[in-house]
Amino acid sequence: MKRPLGFPSEDTWKLDEETLPPLNENEILIQNHYISFDPAMRGWLNETRSYIEPVKIGEVMRAGSIGKVLESKNSKFSKGDIVSGWAGVQQYSINNGKGFFKINPGNLDLPVFIGTLGMPGMTAYFGILEVGKIKKGDTVLVSAAAGAVGSIVGQIAKIKGCKVIGIAGGKNKCDYVINDLGFDGCIDYKNESVTRGIKRECPNGIDVYFDNVGGDILDAALIFINKNARIVVCGAISQYNETAVKGPKNYLSLLVNRATMSGMVVFDYSNKYALAVDQMKIWIEQDKLKSKEDIYSGIENFYEIFKKLFNGDKKGKLILKL
Amino acid sequence: MKRPLGFPSEDTWKLDEETLPPLNENEILIQNHYISFDPAMRGWLNETRSYIEPVKIGEVMRAGSIGKVLESKNSKFSKGDIVSGWAGVQQYSINNGKGFFKINPGNLDLPVFIGTLGMPGMTAYFGILEVGKIKKGDTVLVSAAAGAVGSIVGQIAKIKGCKVIGIAGGKNKCDYVINDLGFDGCIDYKNESVTRGIKRECPNGIDVYFDNVGGDILDAALIFINKNARIVVCGAISQYNETAVKGPKNYLSLLVNRATMSGMVVFDYSNKYALAVDQMKIWIEQDKLKSKEDIYSGIENFYEIFKKLFNGDKKGKLILKL
Repeated sequence: MKRPLGFPSEDTWKLDEETLPPLNENEILIQNHYISFDPAMRGWLNETRSYIEPVKIGEVMRAGSIGKVLESKNSKFSKGDIVSGWAGVQQYSINNGKGFFKINPGNLDLPVFIGTLGMPGMTAYFGILEVGKIKKGDTVLVSAAAGAVGSIVGQIAKIKGCKVIGIAGGKNKCDYVINDLGFDGCIDYKNESVTRGIKRECPNGIDVYFDNVGGDILDAALIFINKNARIVVCGAISQYNETAVKGPKNYLSLLVNRATMSGMVVFDYSNKYALAVDQMKIWIEQDKLKSKEDIYSGIENFYEIFKKLFNGDKKGKLILKL
Repeated sequence: MKRPLGFPSEDTWKLDEETLPPLNENEILIQNHYISFDPAMRGWLNETRSYIEPVKIGEVMRAGSIGKVLESKNSKFSKGDIVSGWAGVQQYSINNGKGFFKINPGNLDLPVFIGTLGMPGMTAYFGILEVGKIKKGDTVLVSAAAGAVGSIVGQIAKIKGCKVIGIAGGKNKCDYVINDLGFDGCIDYKNESVTRGIKRECPNGIDVYFDNVGGDILDAALIFINKNARIVVCGAISQYNETAVKGPKNYLSLLVNRATMSGMVVFDYSNKYALAVDQMKIWIEQDKLKSKEDIYSGIENFYEIFKKLFNGDKKGKLILKL
């Protein structure tokens, strides 16, 4: 096996079968029900300095997960507990429970806990509120607006009284963003110039741009930012499979507009996840926040599902059901 | 006349002689003694949306100035006043006094008031303190370190207890930066790889990068920024004469390091200039802050002096003496 360059080929991963060994002291056995698919997975394959160690060659592919404890030799977990954590892309996981926490789903479906109430939701919540620092009346532009993070970012911004414009690929997604998620407008980057779209949808400029994509769309947004605008760099999905990243050539707009471009990593907010989950549960109950999951079955379909992260063929949070 | 594309040719400007008309009510006649040369002049020639209107074709070239009031019909100014403002590149200026303020030079030479105590000094002061938010112990990297802004940025950071590394072109400038200005180190970008230089001089990474140049040097700095680093985008002198700006391809380091890149324009701090001048005067008296001006004579040499802004052939603040 070797690390991929550009878009990973199917043989970047292989499916292995192993017999489950008996548990050691302190370990738990989890049956995984849902596996989270995130664009960040691509970055974890690169052997470069990043916010987290790369996945080692031969290691189980890293992924967030939800499952049920089948057996426990760890005093913190009991048989039957529903737990979320980083079990990786596998049907069963044996580990010491570190990084796993119990979930009490209540009325909510389990997949919500790796979408809206999981990493993407936490990323959206802290990204738009603490990094984007939105205020009522701001014009907020969100790329990958139909995606797991973007869809939540925009809905939170609406709840906070902002004007929210999305950018998404295709009429179907744009209709979803406006009609189902309640955005004020959406730019279909596959069928129109993003520059022209921003000019039309944001006639008073952009106060906050939440960037999930990088590349040309980031450059288009930079043209229209207002004085003291904030750009949240959450991701750059257009660049993850490129061997050479394209820098934002319009970055001097930051100078002209005294604007700020800030990176964020959701893990920094882990001590506040519980508060955010409580708040977002209330919004879900009040029907102010819609959670959308795109769920596929079969671990053998890993690669086909992985591709959907990058080819635009999904809506909301991408999940593998086991 | 036409607007320049790329590096301005000599015929971008022409020298005109006019007879001084008599003063109207409220006007003052200033004899200009010193004219400020700034890299920003290049940007003022472009007809693009910026933080200030472009200089109109046929208009006097915009420039900061210091001069003496020869005649006044304005109650705020008297004959003999030394005034600083925006007189433009001309020997005499007639205007209504708007944007001009009186200077009391005390023991200091007049050119200091368009360098260290003028726009470049104010840019350095507010840029490194309010945007860079330096703290004692930070490692601060400054490009164009021998220049009007960079030299002050680094000296202020030293006063505040930071480790300060400069980047400058040539051994002569690097020696000056270390020996005269007191920086802890200097990377000679003309004679070594900036990446290798940063690795050597900043073994613990960069907490604040004050960027005056953009381009490859900004990209090199991005590789080495620490968690929560601040990048101050003050200018991009390497890009001002390029027809296509090069974006920082390593900008995703902002994400990995939860770092921030912020633009600044000195005019935003105008209500605090006086406080900064008072503080910097004290530092100059205490010999903690050195002011260096590179002064040339003769308005007919405008173009030759202008070129020095970009070809590296100057040290400190570039000034035309009339």
